[in-house]
Amino acid sequence: MTGTWVAGPTNSIVDVDGLRVGHHTRTGNGWLTGTTVVVGPPEGMVGGVDVRGGGPGTRETDVLGLTTAQTPVHAVVLGGGSAFGLAAASGVADSLEEDGVGVEVTTPYGTMTVPIVPAAIVFDLGRGGDPKCRPDPGFGAAAYRAASTEPPAQGCVGAGTGSVAGAIKGGIGSASVVIDGAVTVAVITAVNAAGSAVDPANGELYGVRFGLPGEYDRLRAPATPELDRARAGGQVHPPSAHAPAGPAPLNTTIGVVATDAVLTRPQCTKLAAVVHDGMARALRPCHSMQDGDSVFALATGRGPSPDDGLFFSILAAGADCFARAVVNAMLAATSVTTPVGSWPSYLDLMPSAMEAKGQQ
Amino acid sequence: MTGTWVAGPTNSIVDVDGLRVGHHTRTGNGWLTGTTVVVGPPEGMVGGVDVRGGGPGTRETDVLGLTTAQTPVHAVVLGGGSAFGLAAASGVADSLEEDGVGVEVTTPYGTMTVPIVPAAIVFDLGRGGDPKCRPDPGFGAAAYRAASTEPPAQGCVGAGTGSVAGAIKGGIGSASVVIDGAVTVAVITAVNAAGSAVDPANGELYGVRFGLPGEYDRLRAPATPELDRARAGGQVHPPSAHAPAGPAPLNTTIGVVATDAVLTRPQCTKLAAVVHDGMARALRPCHSMQDGDSVFALATGRGPSPDDGLFFSILAAGADCFARAVVNAMLAATSVTTPVGSWPSYLDLMPSAMEAKGQQ
Repeated sequence: MTGTWVAGPTNSIVDVDGLRVGHHTRTGNGWLTGTTVVVGPPEGMVGGVDVRGGGPGTRETDVLGLTTAQTPVHAVVLGGGSAFGLAAASGVADSLEEDGVGVEVTTPYGTMTVPIVPAAIVFDLGRGGDPKCRPDPGFGAAAYRAASTEPPAQGCVGAGTGSVAGAIKGGIGSASVVIDGAVTVAVITAVNAAGSAVDPANGELYGVRFGLPGEYDRLRAPATPELDRARAGGQVHPPSAHAPAGPAPLNTTIGVVATDAVLTRPQCTKLAAVVHDGMARALRPCHSMQDGDSVFALATGRGPSPDDGLFFSILAAGADCFARAVVNAMLAATSVTTPVGSWPSYLDLMPSAMEAKGQQ
Repeated sequence: MTGTWVAGPTNSIVDVDGLRVGHHTRTGNGWLTGTTVVVGPPEGMVGGVDVRGGGPGTRETDVLGLTTAQTPVHAVVLGGGSAFGLAAASGVADSLEEDGVGVEVTTPYGTMTVPIVPAAIVFDLGRGGDPKCRPDPGFGAAAYRAASTEPPAQGCVGAGTGSVAGAIKGGIGSASVVIDGAVTVAVITAVNAAGSAVDPANGELYGVRFGLPGEYDRLRAPATPELDRARAGGQVHPPSAHAPAGPAPLNTTIGVVATDAVLTRPQCTKLAAVVHDGMARALRPCHSMQDGDSVFALATGRGPSPDDGLFFSILAAGADCFARAVVNAMLAATSVTTPVGSWPSYLDLMPSAMEAKGQQ
């Protein structure tokens, strides 16, 4: 295969034609959480899911099963708030219905519109200071209203607002890839892992090596004093040193991989599964009993029907795209301090890891 | 095995020590729906689930997976409203948290309480006249407030309010069995099947033959004129005549099987799966692409740890208990007429199927 992979025009999930993304973010006065929605075209999308963490919090995943009806998906919600935050999906469903988007159900007493809105959540309760400050249906409705085809904000917004990866501030990140000029694959992820995105050997983000040619040329291993300080502070550490203190369910990395290819439900399920490999490459460890790691796959079907070779590339590029989205989340995240904690961003902690703009 | 099976004191799911059940029901002015909650003891229960329909609508089923953490379940919500009705679970989760019930999550910034509230829904949208009249979080909160150890009302209440089985009014039903005086197994189910609960050969409810000794002695095949009228009216028909007219996703029979036995998560999953056999015996057809049939299994662990023989009996008695709960739902249901339809109850349609009280 001589395939070429290049980033799409925005290097984000909205490079998949027909997708819109919206965030709703709330910080301060006890808040540090949010909700992100990926909205598809009105006709819906083919969807699949792979839940691989030991502490998942999900909604409407069974409808994506391999033996269920070919029900389309209309939006996917990623959000904070642990299990409580699943409530945000109700706000998205109500909003989609108002816009006439959903499965048209014909009954003897009329036709109804039932939007299918799978959802997954991360555990960020209490990081803003008040565990009661968490997304409700209004967060979903607000994220839906904010949805647009503009490249989504990344870092500490939406589902990534309260996210932490290891001991470093996490966030939401996105990336895209266009394969052979023919098909687009893209990811959005909220990185809230119990594990770390940083290689303890040299302070680099694990996912950088999966960048497209030239993509991360401005990144380099941080200077030794910065790395030593981060090691001493416990923000950079080997996985062997990372036993969570006490029970910590529902730390979680969640995401959506989307493509314009024509995929079946089983192919979407496979794509969601293989994309977890990108998570595995960018976060170490992951998929633990303390993580609820879940990935949804969406196919709009506006692009080509892949043959085996192209589907091979979609899977491989999708996994790398997830790793790149994790990198982009970590780079976009900013340091956050609340009444209960302080989480430095990767670049605040080790600014030498990125050369200043204009240098080369 | 010389085991004896007898009904528990109330022949309902509250015979499992520690369980409470609450309904919230709303009818009239466009409404015909409701929510039912099964609330466990504060320490939670071991849970499992088997989703076997082709059009499920569920929440928090992945947390019950076979490789996830041993997270306890605090309540299960069954409700109307199709996917929209999943919102009711948020009201239950918020209420449980207010009562301090949930997983205690210890974080560096405090301890939080996260209730685990799996849920499944039936499709009853529009039967009351207005498809927008469906459960919201307030339904869950109200059902939770109403929860008690009293035997739950059956028929057209809670999740069974808008249920229809074939062309006959469905509802919610419950039953229990005590095995060898040692362990209790009990079921509550909302019967909203695309298929029928009535044997077209003789007008009997399929599930009657799975009654405990003497349990349904007052039931008999209905008189021929009544059966002929029901056949002519299309309320009683062979499964071959029952092709749903047009798309009808999310007709669904959902339920909870509970026991006081000490069961593992895999054993609960197995119990949920085998209990679907009782559904299969009482409803024909079921598990179709138009049904979202789902069963949750809950084990309080206050009773014995079963050996292989007792677990065999728990599975067998649980399946029969589900069939009996379907019968009880059909017998308790009452005829309903709304602006958009009329659904006769089994006993209104064929009153000769039950001998009057006092006769024998």
